[in-house]
Amino acid sequence: MFIQRFEEITILTNGVKLISLTDQIEKFVKSSEIENGILNLSILHTSASLIIQENADPDVQKDLINFYDKLAPMNNDLYIHSTEGKDDMPAHIKSSLTNTNLTLSIKGYKVQLGTWQGIFLFEHRLERQKRKVFLHIIGEK
Amino acid sequence: MFIQRFEEITILTNGVKLISLTDQIEKFVKSSEIENGILNLSILHTSASLIIQENADPDVQKDLINFYDKLAPMNNDLYIHSTEGKDDMPAHIKSSLTNTNLTLSIKGYKVQLGTWQGIFLFEHRLERQKRKVFLHIIGEK
Amino acid sequence: MFIQRFEEITILTNGVKLISLTDQIEKFVKSSEIENGILNLSILHTSASLIIQENADPDVQKDLINFYDKLAPMNNDLYIHSTEGKDDMPAHIKSSLTNTNLTLSIKGYKVQLGTWQGIFLFEHRLERQKRKVFLHIIGEK
Repeated sequence: MFIQRFEEITILTNGVKLISLTDQIEKFVKSSEIENGILNLSILHTSASLIIQENADPDVQKDLINFYDKLAPMNNDLYIHSTEGKDDMPAHIKSSLTNTNLTLSIKGYKVQLGTWQGIFLFEHRLERQKRKVFLHIIGEK
Repeated sequence: MFIQRFEEITILTNGVKLISLTDQIEKFVKSSEIENGILNLSILHTSASLIIQENADPDVQKDLINFYDKLAPMNNDLYIHSTEGKDDMPAHIKSSLTNTNLTLSIKGYKVQLGTWQGIFLFEHRLERQKRKVFLHIIGEK
Repeated sequence: MFIQRFEEITILTNGVKLISLTDQIEKFVKSSEIENGILNLSILHTSASLIIQENADPDVQKDLINFYDKLAPMNNDLYIHSTEGKDDMPAHIKSSLTNTNLTLSIKGYKVQLGTWQGIFLFEHRLERQKRKVFLHIIGEK
């Protein structure tokens, strides 16, 4: 029988960082009791994003943050849209380069991720933020 | 009851620009009468793309266009593939950096988007183009 | 009747390259006998990725490879994470800029792709690799 499950989670962030959502998402998948299906994740913001990345060496996360910071520097002279802070326009750019939505497969009650893959919220703003991520599964019990 | 709905829309473009598709997509979702489901969007081209971005300040769109133009400049000296125009290879690059497909969730007859999120076609070519976007919902009535 | 089909394919790679998966994926879709549905693709690695790109001129692929190589150079001086080789951190960055998952629509037994679109695995590592891609369809027979 095909069913759907939804959940909205709130993540409190505190500066530019990658925050693992893998455990929370796997818990939601388990609680759904869906054996096989599609999991769709949506971050409801345009200055934070979702990525799948290496879950082992924390230096990878530092290098990713550095890379995106060099690519879209926090320098108001570079942008027209500057009234919301030096980090806002770079945040929009970084969001457009990564993902607002991620769609994963569930098989045998498990999210299909490789051994080294984790699901992360990528916060691009400097100040504390309250981020909403919408979790949705469509699948078979 | 699970059902599917499809629609192909055509967007006429006129130069490098972000064009909001949000209204057209929401109209399609409403007409589908699907309460909960998954919405998949596909742009059937490799020199224009789809992004979810800020829908409020038009300067954000100008900054995004500038950013991508600096990142992949329209300069034939930089590329081997140059016979289709100085804007063609940069268009392929910009497409690869953004999205060909977007997958969103529908709950309570509504596309799950944040307050400041809009769905845009991102045109990367300079001349007039006819762009096809395929809309598809799988969900429950 | 809604059903699901799964397949895991293994791709042997040999250096930085785009490898077309279109034929293998279309064969899987055909064998599923699903008329209409959603196809979700997941690469189970963080140093190779998936992209939809031009399938006609091979120079486009060379230019894409050059672009990403300039953007995230294979130079250990640029990164903290350097013990796994000069190509590893750039591979993670390139993966984050492209896609780990792609979601496509199937209508009339056919993957909805434009005339010039192909589905590619984008290998970012220099040495031989064994890459797993998970194919999943949910749809109606």
